[in-house]
Amino acid sequence: MREQIKTWQHVFKLDPDRTISDDVLAKVCKSGTDAIMVGGSSGVTYNNTVDLIKRISLHDIPCVLEVSDLEMVVPGFDLYMIPLVLNTNDSQWMIGQHVSAIEQYSHFIPWDKLVPEGYIVLNADSTVARRTEALTEIDLDRAVAYAQAGDRLFHLPIIYIEYSGRFGDMELTGEIRRSTHQAQLFYGGGIRDVHSARQAKQVCDTIVVGNIIYENLQAALDTVQVISR
Amino acid sequence: MREQIKTWQHVFKLDPDRTISDDVLAKVCKSGTDAIMVGGSSGVTYNNTVDLIKRISLHDIPCVLEVSDLEMVVPGFDLYMIPLVLNTNDSQWMIGQHVSAIEQYSHFIPWDKLVPEGYIVLNADSTVARRTEALTEIDLDRAVAYAQAGDRLFHLPIIYIEYSGRFGDMELTGEIRRSTHQAQLFYGGGIRDVHSARQAKQVCDTIVVGNIIYENLQAALDTVQVISR
Repeated sequence: MREQIKTWQHVFKLDPDRTISDDVLAKVCKSGTDAIMVGGSSGVTYNNTVDLIKRISLHDIPCVLEVSDLEMVVPGFDLYMIPLVLNTNDSQWMIGQHVSAIEQYSHFIPWDKLVPEGYIVLNADSTVARRTEALTEIDLDRAVAYAQAGDRLFHLPIIYIEYSGRFGDMELTGEIRRSTHQAQLFYGGGIRDVHSARQAKQVCDTIVVGNIIYENLQAALDTVQVISR
Repeated sequence: MREQIKTWQHVFKLDPDRTISDDVLAKVCKSGTDAIMVGGSSGVTYNNTVDLIKRISLHDIPCVLEVSDLEMVVPGFDLYMIPLVLNTNDSQWMIGQHVSAIEQYSHFIPWDKLVPEGYIVLNADSTVARRTEALTEIDLDRAVAYAQAGDRLFHLPIIYIEYSGRFGDMELTGEIRRSTHQAQLFYGGGIRDVHSARQAKQVCDTIVVGNIIYENLQAALDTVQVISR
Protein backbone atom coordinates (compact mmCIF):
# COMPACT_ATOMS: atom_id res chain seq x y z
CA MET A 1 0.00 0.00 0.00
CA ARG A 2 2.89 2.37 0.72
CA GLU A 3 4.01 1.96 -2.87
CA GLN A 4 0.50 2.65 -4.11
CA ILE A 5 0.68 6.22 -2.80
CA LYS A 6 3.08 7.02 -5.62
CA THR A 7 0.21 6.63 -8.07
CA TRP A 8 -2.08 9.04 -6.24
CA GLN A 9 -2.89 12.20 -8.16
CA HIS A 10 -5.94 13.34 -6.22
CA VAL A 11 -6.95 12.84 -2.60
CA PHE A 12 -10.03 13.99 -0.69
CA LYS A 13 -9.36 14.98 2.91
CA LEU A 14 -12.21 14.48 5.35
CA ASP A 15 -12.31 16.08 8.79
CA PRO A 16 -13.76 13.89 11.57
CA ASP A 17 -14.89 17.04 13.35
CA ARG A 18 -17.20 18.07 10.50
CA THR A 19 -20.58 16.59 9.64
CA ILE A 20 -21.01 14.73 6.38
CA SER A 21 -24.17 12.86 5.33
CA ASP A 22 -24.09 9.28 4.08
CA ASP A 23 -25.18 10.50 0.68
CA VAL A 24 -22.39 13.05 0.36
CA LEU A 25 -19.83 10.58 1.72
CA ALA A 26 -20.89 8.01 -0.88
CA LYS A 27 -20.47 10.54 -3.67
CA VAL A 28 -17.00 11.48 -2.40
CA CYS A 29 -15.91 7.85 -2.12
CA LYS A 30 -17.24 6.95 -5.56
CA SER A 31 -15.93 10.13 -7.22
CA GLY A 32 -12.91 8.46 -8.78
CA THR A 33 -10.46 10.05 -6.34
CA ASP A 34 -7.41 7.95 -5.53
CA ALA A 35 -7.84 7.88 -1.77
CA ILE A 36 -9.51 9.36 1.27
CA MET A 37 -7.29 10.97 3.88
CA VAL A 38 -8.86 11.45 7.31
CA GLY A 39 -7.43 14.31 9.31
CA GLY A 40 -7.99 17.70 10.88
CA SER A 41 -6.22 20.42 12.81
CA SER A 42 -8.64 20.63 15.74
CA GLY A 43 -11.55 18.88 17.42
CA VAL A 44 -10.43 15.44 16.30
CA THR A 45 -11.20 12.67 18.80
CA TYR A 46 -11.13 8.88 18.96
CA ASN A 47 -14.90 8.72 18.68
CA ASN A 48 -15.43 10.99 15.71
CA THR A 49 -12.49 9.31 13.92
CA VAL A 50 -13.88 5.81 14.55
CA ASP A 51 -17.26 6.94 13.31
CA LEU A 52 -15.84 8.31 10.07
CA ILE A 53 -13.56 5.33 9.27
CA LYS A 54 -16.47 2.93 9.84
CA ARG A 55 -18.59 4.80 7.36
CA ILE A 56 -15.80 5.13 4.79
CA SER A 57 -15.00 1.42 5.06
CA LEU A 58 -18.40 0.62 3.54
CA HIS A 59 -16.91 1.87 0.28
CA ASP A 60 -14.10 0.38 -1.77
CA ILE A 61 -11.50 3.13 -1.53
CA PRO A 62 -8.05 3.34 0.09
CA CYS A 63 -8.37 5.22 3.36
CA VAL A 64 -5.48 6.64 5.33
CA LEU A 65 -5.35 8.46 8.64
CA GLU A 66 -3.24 11.56 9.05
CA VAL A 67 -2.22 11.47 12.70
CA SER A 68 -2.21 15.01 14.07
CA ASP A 69 -3.17 13.95 17.60
CA LEU A 70 -2.50 10.73 19.48
CA GLU A 71 -6.10 10.65 20.65
CA MET A 72 -7.25 9.98 17.11
CA VAL A 73 -5.17 6.84 16.54
CA VAL A 74 -7.74 4.25 15.54
CA PRO A 75 -7.01 0.78 14.12
CA GLY A 76 -8.35 -0.20 10.73
CA PHE A 77 -6.77 2.34 8.40
CA ASP A 78 -4.74 1.18 5.42
CA LEU A 79 -1.90 3.56 6.28
CA TYR A 80 -1.01 6.14 8.90
CA MET A 81 0.43 9.39 7.60
CA ILE A 82 2.76 11.00 10.13
CA PRO A 83 3.15 14.75 9.62
CA LEU A 84 6.46 16.36 10.57
CA VAL A 85 6.56 20.14 10.30
CA LEU A 86 9.87 21.13 8.73
CA ASN A 87 9.59 24.93 8.93
CA THR A 88 9.29 25.56 12.64
CA ASN A 89 11.85 26.35 15.32
CA ASP A 90 10.00 24.19 17.83
CA SER A 91 11.25 20.66 17.31
CA GLN A 92 8.27 19.09 19.09
CA TRP A 93 6.40 19.30 15.75
CA MET A 94 9.24 17.68 13.91
CA ILE A 95 10.34 14.95 16.32
CA GLY A 96 9.34 15.60 19.95
CA GLN A 97 5.71 14.52 19.84
CA HIS A 98 6.63 11.60 17.65
CA VAL A 99 9.21 10.42 20.17
CA SER A 100 6.61 10.63 22.95
CA ALA A 101 4.23 8.57 20.84
CA ILE A 102 6.87 5.97 20.01
CA GLU A 103 7.78 5.71 23.70
CA GLN A 104 4.12 5.30 24.68
CA TYR A 105 3.12 2.74 22.03
CA SER A 106 6.51 1.10 21.62
CA HIS A 107 6.06 -2.48 20.39
CA PHE A 108 2.54 -1.85 19.12
CA ILE A 109 3.61 0.49 16.36
CA PRO A 110 2.89 -0.93 12.88
CA TRP A 111 6.03 0.58 11.35
CA ASP A 112 5.28 -0.76 7.88
CA LYS A 113 2.04 1.20 7.82
CA LEU A 114 3.59 4.55 8.75
CA VAL A 115 4.33 7.14 6.10
CA PRO A 116 6.16 10.26 7.29
CA GLU A 117 5.23 13.50 5.52
CA GLY A 118 7.44 16.57 5.62
CA TYR A 119 5.10 19.53 5.92
CA ILE A 120 6.02 23.02 4.80
CA VAL A 121 3.26 25.17 6.28
CA LEU A 122 2.89 28.48 4.45
CA ASN A 123 -0.41 30.15 5.37
CA ALA A 124 0.17 32.22 8.51
CA ASP A 125 -3.58 32.51 9.09
CA SER A 126 -4.22 28.78 9.31
CA THR A 127 -4.83 26.78 12.48
CA VAL A 128 -1.93 24.48 11.69
CA ALA A 129 0.49 27.41 11.24
CA ARG A 130 -0.52 28.96 14.56
CA ARG A 131 -0.44 25.65 16.41
CA THR A 132 3.01 24.65 15.15
CA GLU A 133 4.47 28.17 15.14
CA ALA A 134 5.41 27.60 11.52
CA LEU A 135 7.90 30.00 9.92
CA THR A 136 5.51 31.00 7.14
CA GLU A 137 7.37 34.18 6.15
CA ILE A 138 10.01 32.45 4.09
CA ASP A 139 10.96 33.16 0.50
CA LEU A 140 11.14 30.72 -2.38
CA ASP A 141 14.81 29.82 -1.87
CA ARG A 142 14.30 28.98 1.78
CA ALA A 143 11.15 26.97 1.10
CA VAL A 144 13.10 24.99 -1.49
CA ALA A 145 15.90 24.44 1.03
CA TYR A 146 13.41 23.07 3.58
CA ALA A 147 12.03 20.73 0.94
CA GLN A 148 15.52 19.57 -0.02
CA ALA A 149 16.41 18.91 3.61
CA GLY A 150 13.28 16.77 3.95
CA ASP A 151 13.90 15.06 0.63
CA ARG A 152 17.65 14.47 0.71
CA LEU A 153 18.68 14.48 4.37
CA PHE A 154 15.58 12.90 5.92
CA HIS A 155 14.61 10.90 2.85
CA LEU A 156 10.92 11.59 3.51
CA PRO A 157 8.67 9.88 0.94
CA ILE A 158 6.33 12.89 0.87
CA ILE A 159 6.85 16.65 0.97
CA TYR A 160 3.54 18.38 1.66
CA ILE A 161 3.09 22.04 0.72
CA GLU A 162 0.30 23.19 3.01
CA TYR A 163 -1.56 26.45 2.41
CA SER A 164 -4.59 25.25 4.37
CA GLY A 165 -7.44 27.70 3.71
CA ARG A 166 -6.06 29.66 0.80
CA PHE A 167 -4.66 28.97 -2.65
CA GLY A 168 -0.89 29.12 -2.56
CA ASP A 169 2.12 30.15 -4.58
CA MET A 170 2.27 27.91 -7.62
CA GLU A 171 5.71 29.18 -8.68
CA LEU A 172 7.11 28.15 -5.30
CA THR A 173 5.36 24.78 -5.45
CA GLY A 174 6.68 24.11 -8.96
CA GLU A 175 10.21 25.10 -7.99
CA ILE A 176 10.08 22.70 -5.05
CA ARG A 177 8.98 19.91 -7.34
CA ARG A 178 11.89 20.59 -9.66
CA SER A 179 14.34 20.75 -6.76
CA THR A 180 13.43 17.52 -5.01
CA HIS A 181 14.99 14.22 -5.83
CA GLN A 182 12.84 11.32 -4.64
CA ALA A 183 9.96 12.74 -2.58
CA GLN A 184 6.41 12.82 -3.88
CA LEU A 185 5.01 16.36 -3.72
CA PHE A 186 1.60 16.87 -2.14
CA TYR A 187 -0.14 20.22 -2.41
CA GLY A 188 -3.08 21.28 -0.26
CA GLY A 189 -4.94 24.54 0.27
CA GLY A 190 -7.61 26.60 -1.42
CA ILE A 191 -8.55 24.20 -4.20
CA ARG A 192 -12.16 25.21 -4.76
CA ASP A 193 -12.91 24.15 -8.33
CA VAL A 194 -11.53 22.26 -11.29
CA HIS A 195 -9.61 25.35 -12.44
CA SER A 196 -7.57 25.73 -9.25
CA ALA A 197 -7.23 21.94 -9.09
CA ARG A 198 -5.65 21.95 -12.57
CA GLN A 199 -3.29 24.79 -11.69
CA ALA A 200 -2.07 22.93 -8.62
CA LYS A 201 -1.84 19.57 -10.38
CA GLN A 202 0.49 21.08 -12.97
CA VAL A 203 3.13 21.81 -10.34
CA CYS A 204 2.83 18.89 -7.91
CA ASP A 205 2.28 15.14 -7.90
CA THR A 206 -0.78 14.91 -5.71
CA ILE A 207 -3.46 17.46 -4.88
CA VAL A 208 -5.42 17.34 -1.66
CA VAL A 209 -8.97 18.68 -1.76
CA GLY A 210 -10.65 19.33 1.57
CA ASN A 211 -12.85 22.24 2.70
CA ILE A 212 -14.76 22.66 -0.54
CA ILE A 213 -16.34 19.22 0.01
CA TYR A 214 -18.34 20.76 2.84
CA GLU A 215 -19.16 23.98 0.98
CA ASN A 216 -19.82 23.04 -2.62
CA LEU A 217 -19.97 19.31 -3.23
CA GLN A 218 -20.28 19.52 -6.99
CA ALA A 219 -17.26 21.80 -7.29
CA ALA A 220 -15.34 19.36 -5.11
CA LEU A 221 -16.36 16.35 -7.21
CA ASP A 222 -15.35 18.21 -10.38
CA THR A 223 -11.75 18.43 -9.17
CA VAL A 224 -11.35 14.70 -9.76
CA GLN A 225 -11.17 15.53 -13.46
CA VAL A 226 -7.49 16.42 -13.01
CA ILE A 227 -6.64 12.73 -12.78
CA SER A 228 -4.98 11.44 -15.94
CA ARG A 229 -4.57 7.71 -16.54
CA MET B 1 31.71 5.08 -0.90
CA ARG B 2 28.44 5.61 0.98
CA GLU B 3 27.88 1.86 0.87
CA GLN B 4 31.39 1.24 2.17
CA ILE B 5 30.51 2.88 5.49
CA LYS B 6 28.42 -0.17 6.32
CA THR B 7 31.61 -2.20 6.61
CA TRP B 8 33.27 0.20 9.02
CA GLN B 9 33.84 -1.23 12.50
CA HIS B 10 36.40 1.26 13.77
CA VAL B 11 36.99 4.91 12.97
CA PHE B 12 39.58 7.37 14.27
CA LYS B 13 38.28 10.91 14.71
CA LEU B 14 40.82 13.69 14.29
CA ASP B 15 40.24 17.25 15.44
CA PRO B 16 41.61 19.98 13.13
CA ASP B 17 42.01 22.23 16.17
CA ARG B 18 44.51 19.89 17.83
CA THR B 19 48.15 19.39 16.94
CA ILE B 20 49.28 16.05 15.56
CA SER B 21 52.78 15.30 14.26
CA ASP B 22 53.40 13.70 10.89
CA ASP B 23 54.77 10.64 12.63
CA VAL B 24 51.67 10.17 14.83
CA LEU B 25 49.37 10.86 11.90
CA ALA B 26 51.13 8.20 9.82
CA LYS B 27 50.70 5.66 12.60
CA VAL B 28 47.00 6.47 12.92
CA CYS B 29 46.42 6.21 9.17
CA LYS B 30 48.34 2.93 8.90
CA SER B 31 46.80 1.44 12.04
CA GLY B 32 44.30 -0.73 10.22
CA THR B 33 41.33 1.49 11.14
CA ASP B 34 38.55 1.59 8.57
CA ALA B 35 38.47 5.36 8.10
CA ILE B 36 39.49 8.74 9.41
CA MET B 37 36.73 11.15 10.37
CA VAL B 38 37.72 14.80 10.62
CA GLY B 39 35.63 16.84 13.01
CA GLY B 40 35.48 18.81 16.22
CA SER B 41 33.10 20.74 18.42
CA SER B 42 35.05 24.01 18.59
CA GLY B 43 37.93 25.91 17.04
CA VAL B 44 37.49 24.28 13.64
CA THR B 45 38.31 26.57 10.70
CA TYR B 46 38.77 26.32 6.95
CA ASN B 47 42.52 26.60 7.32
CA ASN B 48 43.10 23.99 9.98
CA THR B 49 40.71 21.61 8.17
CA VAL B 50 42.51 22.08 4.83
CA ASP B 51 45.82 21.50 6.55
CA LEU B 52 44.66 18.24 8.11
CA ILE B 53 42.97 16.80 4.99
CA LYS B 54 46.09 17.56 2.93
CA ARG B 55 48.24 15.62 5.35
CA ILE B 56 45.79 12.71 5.62
CA SER B 57 45.51 12.48 1.81
CA LEU B 58 49.16 11.42 1.68
CA HIS B 59 47.96 8.11 3.12
CA ASP B 60 45.72 5.51 1.53
CA ILE B 61 42.73 5.63 3.87
CA PRO B 62 39.09 6.74 3.43
CA CYS B 63 38.70 10.20 4.91
CA VAL B 64 35.39 11.85 5.71
CA LEU B 65 34.53 15.27 7.06
CA GLU B 66 31.97 15.67 9.79
CA VAL B 67 30.48 19.10 9.11
CA SER B 68 29.78 20.82 12.42
CA ASP B 69 30.40 24.30 11.08
CA LEU B 70 29.99 25.72 7.59
CA GLU B 71 33.36 27.41 7.88
CA MET B 72 35.06 24.02 7.78
CA VAL B 73 33.55 22.84 4.49
CA VAL B 74 36.58 21.97 2.39
CA PRO B 75 36.60 20.11 -0.94
CA GLY B 76 38.50 16.85 -1.31
CA PHE B 77 36.89 14.60 1.25
CA ASP B 78 35.47 11.24 0.21
CA LEU B 79 32.21 11.91 2.08
CA TYR B 80 30.61 14.62 4.18
CA MET B 81 28.89 13.46 7.35
CA ILE B 82 26.02 15.77 8.31
CA PRO B 83 25.16 15.59 12.02
CA LEU B 84 21.54 16.21 13.04
CA VAL B 85 20.94 16.32 16.78
CA LEU B 86 17.75 14.39 17.51
CA ASN B 87 17.43 15.03 21.27
CA THR B 88 17.13 18.79 21.45
CA ASN B 89 14.15 21.12 21.55
CA ASP B 90 15.95 23.63 19.35
CA SER B 91 15.33 22.55 15.79
CA GLN B 92 18.24 24.59 14.42
CA TRP B 93 20.48 21.63 15.29
CA MET B 94 18.18 19.21 13.55
CA ILE B 95 17.21 21.12 10.41
CA GLY B 96 17.61 24.91 10.74
CA GLN B 97 21.33 25.25 10.18
CA HIS B 98 21.16 22.63 7.45
CA VAL B 99 18.47 24.61 5.63
CA SER B 100 20.62 27.75 5.84
CA ALA B 101 23.54 25.81 4.41
CA ILE B 102 21.44 24.34 1.59
CA GLU B 103 20.12 27.81 0.75
CA GLN B 104 23.63 29.27 0.71
CA TYR B 105 25.34 26.55 -1.33
CA SER B 106 22.32 25.47 -3.36
CA HIS B 107 23.45 23.94 -6.65
CA PHE B 108 26.99 23.28 -5.42
CA ILE B 109 25.94 20.65 -2.91
CA PRO B 110 27.32 17.20 -3.77
CA TRP B 111 24.22 15.36 -2.52
CA ASP B 112 25.62 11.95 -3.32
CA LYS B 113 28.51 12.58 -0.96
CA LEU B 114 26.37 13.61 2.03
CA VAL B 115 25.62 11.16 4.82
CA PRO B 116 23.19 12.40 7.50
CA GLU B 117 23.86 11.12 11.02
CA GLY B 118 21.21 11.21 13.74
CA TYR B 119 23.05 12.17 16.93
CA ILE B 120 21.78 11.29 20.37
CA VAL B 121 23.96 13.39 22.67
CA LEU B 122 24.08 11.99 26.19
CA ASN B 123 26.94 13.56 28.15
CA ALA B 124 25.65 16.78 29.73
CA ASP B 125 29.20 17.95 30.43
CA SER B 126 30.34 17.86 26.82
CA THR B 127 30.82 20.86 24.55
CA VAL B 128 28.42 19.41 21.99
CA ALA B 129 25.67 18.91 24.60
CA ARG B 130 25.98 22.48 25.86
CA ARG B 131 26.16 23.95 22.37
CA THR B 132 23.09 22.09 21.09
CA GLU B 133 21.13 22.22 24.36
CA ALA B 134 20.78 18.47 24.12
CA LEU B 135 18.21 16.77 26.35
CA THR B 136 20.76 14.51 27.99
CA GLU B 137 18.61 13.60 31.01
CA ILE B 138 16.55 10.98 29.19
CA ASP B 139 15.99 7.39 30.23
CA LEU B 140 16.57 4.27 28.16
CA ASP B 141 13.03 4.14 26.71
CA ARG B 142 13.16 7.70 25.51
CA ALA B 143 16.64 7.31 24.04
CA VAL B 144 15.37 4.25 22.17
CA ALA B 145 12.36 6.25 20.92
CA TYR B 146 14.68 9.00 19.59
CA ALA B 147 16.72 6.36 17.81
CA GLN B 148 13.60 4.77 16.32
CA ALA B 149 12.34 8.14 15.10
CA GLY B 150 15.69 8.72 13.37
CA ASP B 151 15.78 5.18 12.01
CA ARG B 152 12.18 4.64 10.93
CA LEU B 153 10.67 8.09 10.33
CA PHE B 154 13.74 9.91 8.99
CA HIS B 155 15.42 6.84 7.55
CA LEU B 156 18.83 8.10 8.63
CA PRO B 157 21.63 5.74 7.58
CA ILE B 158 23.49 6.34 10.84
CA ILE B 159 22.41 6.74 14.46
CA TYR B 160 25.31 8.10 16.51
CA ILE B 161 25.33 7.62 20.29
CA GLU B 162 27.59 10.41 21.51
CA TYR B 163 29.01 10.44 25.04
CA SER B 164 31.89 12.72 24.00
CA GLY B 165 34.41 12.74 26.88
CA ARG B 166 33.15 9.85 28.99
CA PHE B 167 32.35 6.19 28.55
CA GLY B 168 28.62 5.73 28.17
CA ASP B 169 25.79 3.40 29.07
CA MET B 170 26.38 0.15 27.22
CA GLU B 171 22.98 -1.27 28.15
CA LEU B 172 21.29 1.73 26.52
CA THR B 173 23.52 1.50 23.46
CA GLY B 174 22.79 -2.21 23.07
CA GLU B 175 19.06 -1.68 23.45
CA ILE B 176 19.16 0.99 20.74
CA ARG B 177 20.97 -1.40 18.44
CA ARG B 178 18.31 -4.06 19.01
CA SER B 179 15.49 -1.55 18.47
CA THR B 180 16.63 -0.04 15.21
CA HIS B 181 15.71 -1.41 11.84
CA GLN B 182 18.08 -0.23 9.13
CA ALA B 183 20.41 2.35 10.65
CA GLN B 184 24.05 1.65 11.37
CA LEU B 185 24.89 2.38 15.01
CA PHE B 186 27.96 4.50 15.76
CA TYR B 187 29.18 4.84 19.32
CA GLY B 188 31.63 7.51 20.47
CA GLY B 189 32.87 8.66 23.88
CA GLY B 190 35.42 7.60 26.47
CA ILE B 191 37.07 4.77 24.55
CA ARG B 192 40.54 4.89 26.10
CA ASP B 193 41.92 1.37 25.61
CA VAL B 194 41.23 -1.96 23.93
CA HIS B 195 39.07 -3.06 26.86
CA SER B 196 36.57 -0.19 26.57
CA ALA B 197 36.77 -0.48 22.77
CA ARG B 198 35.69 -4.14 23.02
CA GLN B 199 32.85 -3.32 25.38
CA ALA B 200 31.50 -0.70 23.00
CA LYS B 201 32.03 -2.79 19.89
CA GLN B 202 29.87 -5.54 21.39
CA VAL B 203 26.82 -3.27 21.44
CA CYS B 204 27.22 -1.14 18.29
CA ASP B 205 28.30 -1.45 14.68
CA THR B 206 31.06 1.14 14.57
CA ILE B 207 33.17 2.62 17.34
CA VAL B 208 34.69 6.09 17.08
CA VAL B 209 37.99 6.65 18.87
CA GLY B 210 39.09 10.25 19.32
CA ASN B 211 40.66 12.00 22.30
CA ILE B 212 42.90 9.16 23.38
CA ILE B 213 44.89 9.56 20.14
CA TYR B 214 46.25 12.80 21.58
CA GLU B 215 46.82 11.44 25.08
CA ASN B 216 48.10 7.89 24.70
CA LEU B 217 48.86 6.94 21.12
CA GLN B 218 49.65 3.30 21.83
CA ALA B 219 46.37 2.80 23.72
CA ALA B 220 44.55 4.39 20.78
CA LEU B 221 46.30 2.17 18.23
CA ASP B 222 45.47 -0.91 20.33
CA THR B 223 41.73 -0.24 19.93
CA VAL B 224 41.97 -1.26 16.27
CA GLN B 225 42.16 -4.85 17.53
CA VAL B 226 38.37 -4.88 17.86
CA ILE B 227 38.05 -5.15 14.08
CA SER B 228 37.05 -8.64 12.99
CA ARG B 229 37.29 -9.66 9.34
